[in-house]
Amino acid sequence: MSAISALWNAESIAVIGATERPGALGRKPMDFLLRHGYKGRILPINPRGGEVLGVPAYASLTDVEGPVDLALIMVAADRVPGAVDDCVAAGVPLAIIASSGFAETGEEGTALQAGLVARARAGGLRLIGPNCIGAVSFNNRVLATFSPLFGAESVPFEPGTLAFVSQSGALGFGAASLALQRGLRPGWVVSTGNDADVTALEVLRELSAEPECTGLLGYLEDTPDIATLRTLAESGKPVALLKSGRTEAGGRAAASHTGALATDDRVLDAALRQLGIVRVDDIDELLDVAQAFEFPLRPEGPKVAVVTTSGGSGILAADAVEDAGLELSALSPESTAALAEIVPPFGAVENPVDITATVLSDPSLFDKSLDVLIADPAVDIIIACFCVMAGPDVEKAVTALSKAARKGGKPILVARTGADFLAPDAPAQLREAGLPDYPTPARALRAASALWQVSRPRTATSAPAGPGAPAPAADAGEPQLKALLAAAGATVPKGRIVTGAEDAARLVAELGGRAVAKAVVPGLLHKSEAGGVLVGITEQEAPEAYGKLAALGGDVLVEELAPAGVEMIVGARTSALGTVLTVGLGGIFTEVLDDVSHRLLPLAPGDAEAMIAELRGAALLNGARGTAAADTAALARLLEHVALAVQDWPEGFELDLNPVRVLKEGAGAVVLDAAYTVAAPAAD
Amino acid sequence: MSAISALWNAESIAVIGATERPGALGRKPMDFLLRHGYKGRILPINPRGGEVLGVPAYASLTDVEGPVDLALIMVAADRVPGAVDDCVAAGVPLAIIASSGFAETGEEGTALQAGLVARARAGGLRLIGPNCIGAVSFNNRVLATFSPLFGAESVPFEPGTLAFVSQSGALGFGAASLALQRGLRPGWVVSTGNDADVTALEVLRELSAEPECTGLLGYLEDTPDIATLRTLAESGKPVALLKSGRTEAGGRAAASHTGALATDDRVLDAALRQLGIVRVDDIDELLDVAQAFEFPLRPEGPKVAVVTTSGGSGILAADAVEDAGLELSALSPESTAALAEIVPPFGAVENPVDITATVLSDPSLFDKSLDVLIADPAVDIIIACFCVMAGPDVEKAVTALSKAARKGGKPILVARTGADFLAPDAPAQLREAGLPDYPTPARALRAASALWQVSRPRTATSAPAGPGAPAPAADAGEPQLKALLAAAGATVPKGRIVTGAEDAARLVAELGGRAVAKAVVPGLLHKSEAGGVLVGITEQEAPEAYGKLAALGGDVLVEELAPAGVEMIVGARTSALGTVLTVGLGGIFTEVLDDVSHRLLPLAPGDAEAMIAELRGAALLNGARGTAAADTAALARLLEHVALAVQDWPEGFELDLNPVRVLKEGAGAVVLDAAYTVAAPAAD
Repeated sequence: MSAISALWNAESIAVIGATERPGALGRKPMDFLLRHGYKGRILPINPRGGEVLGVPAYASLTDVEGPVDLALIMVAADRVPGAVDDCVAAGVPLAIIASSGFAETGEEGTALQAGLVARARAGGLRLIGPNCIGAVSFNNRVLATFSPLFGAESVPFEPGTLAFVSQSGALGFGAASLALQRGLRPGWVVSTGNDADVTALEVLRELSAEPECTGLLGYLEDTPDIATLRTLAESGKPVALLKSGRTEAGGRAAASHTGALATDDRVLDAALRQLGIVRVDDIDELLDVAQAFEFPLRPEGPKVAVVTTSGGSGILAADAVEDAGLELSALSPESTAALAEIVPPFGAVENPVDITATVLSDPSLFDKSLDVLIADPAVDIIIACFCVMAGPDVEKAVTALSKAARKGGKPILVARTGADFLAPDAPAQLREAGLPDYPTPARALRAASALWQVSRPRTATSAPAGPGAPAPAADAGEPQLKALLAAAGATVPKGRIVTGAEDAARLVAELGGRAVAKAVVPGLLHKSEAGGVLVGITEQEAPEAYGKLAALGGDVLVEELAPAGVEMIVGARTSALGTVLTVGLGGIFTEVLDDVSHRLLPLAPGDAEAMIAELRGAALLNGARGTAAADTAALARLLEHVALAVQDWPEGFELDLNPVRVLKEGAGAVVLDAAYTVAAPAAD
Repeated sequence: MSAISALWNAESIAVIGATERPGALGRKPMDFLLRHGYKGRILPINPRGGEVLGVPAYASLTDVEGPVDLALIMVAADRVPGAVDDCVAAGVPLAIIASSGFAETGEEGTALQAGLVARARAGGLRLIGPNCIGAVSFNNRVLATFSPLFGAESVPFEPGTLAFVSQSGALGFGAASLALQRGLRPGWVVSTGNDADVTALEVLRELSAEPECTGLLGYLEDTPDIATLRTLAESGKPVALLKSGRTEAGGRAAASHTGALATDDRVLDAALRQLGIVRVDDIDELLDVAQAFEFPLRPEGPKVAVVTTSGGSGILAADAVEDAGLELSALSPESTAALAEIVPPFGAVENPVDITATVLSDPSLFDKSLDVLIADPAVDIIIACFCVMAGPDVEKAVTALSKAARKGGKPILVARTGADFLAPDAPAQLREAGLPDYPTPARALRAASALWQVSRPRTATSAPAGPGAPAPAADAGEPQLKALLAAAGATVPKGRIVTGAEDAARLVAELGGRAVAKAVVPGLLHKSEAGGVLVGITEQEAPEAYGKLAALGGDVLVEELAPAGVEMIVGARTSALGTVLTVGLGGIFTEVLDDVSHRLLPLAPGDAEAMIAELRGAALLNGARGTAAADTAALARLLEHVALAVQDWPEGFELDLNPVRVLKEGAGAVVLDAAYTVAAPAAD
């Protein structure tokens, strides 16, 4: 048993600060463990000894005989260090510090928290918290928490398969309570507060190894650790994360709450997409996705067939397919013909298939049309919509749908736009049949999209597909960088540093009679603005050009003129999540629209093309405005060359290729300028 | 009593096709009217006469003595024309045709439907439907419907203030059932099906006149009629619409369902925004907004203060403020200082204000901090977030919140992220206190945003602020259009049609020695591509230029050169919703990014500026790339001049000003080219 898994496997739990004083927080875990029938040893620790709610108490943790798997520390902040020492002394592998008064309060608290972590690490103790609400396993009835959720008389308490892990205890248990209200089955709820030692992400990773766990849901405030994210994704279990602080306002609020550092949210978005982790923006969405994660069916593609008893729901579903980034299946002619035999004339046999309310008088309509859709290879996912159907009608529909789901192995999600009082047994029937259900088509499709995100095939991204380049010297200039990039497979203009005016003229002649001359001056970042770039100089103009540029205090580079093309920027830099590769349309698109796309390295096959396609102005490369299409394939190769080249560079660098000119199709992409800076690792 | 209002005021209802055969649709309205205690006359019409469920039946509607306010027609399609004739003969003012088999089935049905409308109109009868599920008034217990919703034993049936009107009966009654499940109070639910005569929008307009009605919610498939939309908006009652068929896929589905014509969805978006009508994209959002419409408080501005017991909820709320297009209030220094006296040290006194879970032991925290926020003039809306609070704690919070809401007159919306089983009385307490509540901060903020949308001050847009220009001749060319625009206040380049090569040279000299020469050839649309525009010609070059251009077969226009600037497009055209004005960044921004914004005419003050600000590339006008800021004020004036000029033009025109060059600040905006086409009214 790993230390962390004591959160759900503990066979003995010490409650440090246990009391039977009514209303006291230190009473609650005792209450909960007793009420819900925890099978292990309950060890209340209270300096007064005696009993707590009839359970023999110990004056000190060190008095306890036998192993203690988990300690829950619920004493005031100033007494927490002593409690941690006791845990170390007693050989406890894991302690939850529920107490507040640490990093969330400012500098002093941050120092206090660092001290706790140091003590614990030295003593081989892992810590959850501080400033958290504890953890619960619905399966093993471990209730190391004071959440009011378990004080409610009517809280459902059954085994479950969904793992909820949240930095915010209030949101985590709040979300879990809403999940229970929806009839979902959380198996584990863990809050990790300030994430001082063990992080929420580590707990998720640990839970991904639990065989019964079918889905992992997390709420994070801190920027996630990329290595942990990767191993979590590699577990193969579906994961959805709600990461708050997305916006500027949210980021400021997060910083003041847990001191979380802001990250470039779009880099995180890209990373999660690369790893097949679903990102949601609200608790509701998290629960919608969780519901789909309870069931095992996964789509083999993004193509959706909608079958509906209401034309209106069908239209809403079609809108939602597009919003969710899925595709409406183009049904085969055979399917359409078969449906025409089945569907009433006032229905529709194209997708969305409207079987109309006639299904109420002829339930076989559902079976027959589902059979057609299940058999059509153009269908990966089925969304079944129905409105205001009452009890017996829902039952018939559920029977048809569950038969179809079993037969076809394709996920079916239900959009049932009708109150539960119309069909009180429907939720249980749908769950029994393995059919996630939602009140609206849009929500069903959001969940379907999540299923596709977690199941779409991903090539391994753990190892780059080739050797890297040596890192440039910190003061590497344009010629060194271009040489390095050329060695890595990139195209750079022909040319070199010239030795003087005469050499410059000779080289211009060699390069075809017109060339570019550039000043290479360390520290001169805005070369063009400083007059350091002369484009199109002739052999005759070369000596004067040389003189001007040399006067700027550095070397002079003479290069061939690149043909016309579309200007792009390409960059690679260290981010809080690892090295990130960026591509964007140059000039105005970058400056005015911030039109860039990102990927964490390493790239997987197809990533480079996808990055380019994601740009809002991508059409520009495809020959908009009557110009020839640009060589996007060459740009994609360049992205891959850059990705490989920088893979082993030490953290804290920024490489900017600006501009990269993408020539007409088949003619390549040329790096016209390159700059490199080394800094402390960026805080983003 | 207007004909339409019989849907909720009818004192006598005929059910044509009434039967007591168990399971028959024609039995349901009889069942419902009897069960729910309808106070008026129930008049079953059945050729066999006798009784239906104990109520004396009539063989024909024409046998009924006394007035019949409403007829519900539930016979097969082929018998509907006869039923309509009977209604006319009996002097019935309004009939609901529930029967299917009309426009939704294809051409034949469309003709049949047109025939019904013609008969009805000739006879002074208004029609709802066909292909609908009828109408219900919860206040007067009018149940002219066969919706299974009212067959459920446990359907709540209390008076209400929300009006739900839906083209789709299934979605409308489905949404109403979900509203009831949430504890909302629908007062009216009307389905209008194919909208053959009376439209859903007309019913909404009629309901807006009902004094008890506090909010109007609609589901539409057809493009709404702009005049009805305007009068609906002018009622002053808050309105939210779900218009499906937004996307390409959805539009195709809608066309096949009701034959709805696609509209440019962005034009509809603009129109609704102009009218202060909320647009939602899903049933869930419609209900979230409906809940806020139940209560009277309205914000005076978009500035939101968040008060939370959970840091996590606060961060989510801050993210959601930005997503919802609202602003996070910058609290006054006095407020922050006052909050510092109240909030515990591990809380936060900046917005979001985190009063922490300490409020559980000290409920006065809520009162005191709300007092501060209510008093701060930088606060228009308060979002109160709490998680997992159990019964008594929620009660205390509700008491504090309702006191604050009453005192401050500022809307307070609650995000209570916790299951109802934790605090079973909370929904009723919150409703009693007039506090709309939502399970997540994001949903509370979406509703808050809707409240701001319906209450933000709008200047009347019913009358344009000046005289229009005469419509151009159908074959008006560039010179005529420019003259017209100049007369309307726009700036156009100095110049004129020249009489020959010599005149051209003379004019170039007059215009400063360099000018633009253009061919003016009827039907030559792509002038530049055809070599019809020569820029920067000198006096010497003028004769040759004249010759070249004249050879294209038309006149030659010589104009002064415009200074450098940002190129834009401006257009006005007839759309399905009325005349729409468009502005966009020119060239690549239009072609690659489709970066345009729209307004229906007439413009209100500020609209022109807002249109420009909405462009994604608006920064380009503000002096991006180190260039001078452009004269956006002049561009805004141009938009207003164009809007006034075209106001009386007959439908079916398109005016394109492309490009318009916006010069540097203070220097104006010049219409460089203008084209005009007249066509049949566009289907978009």
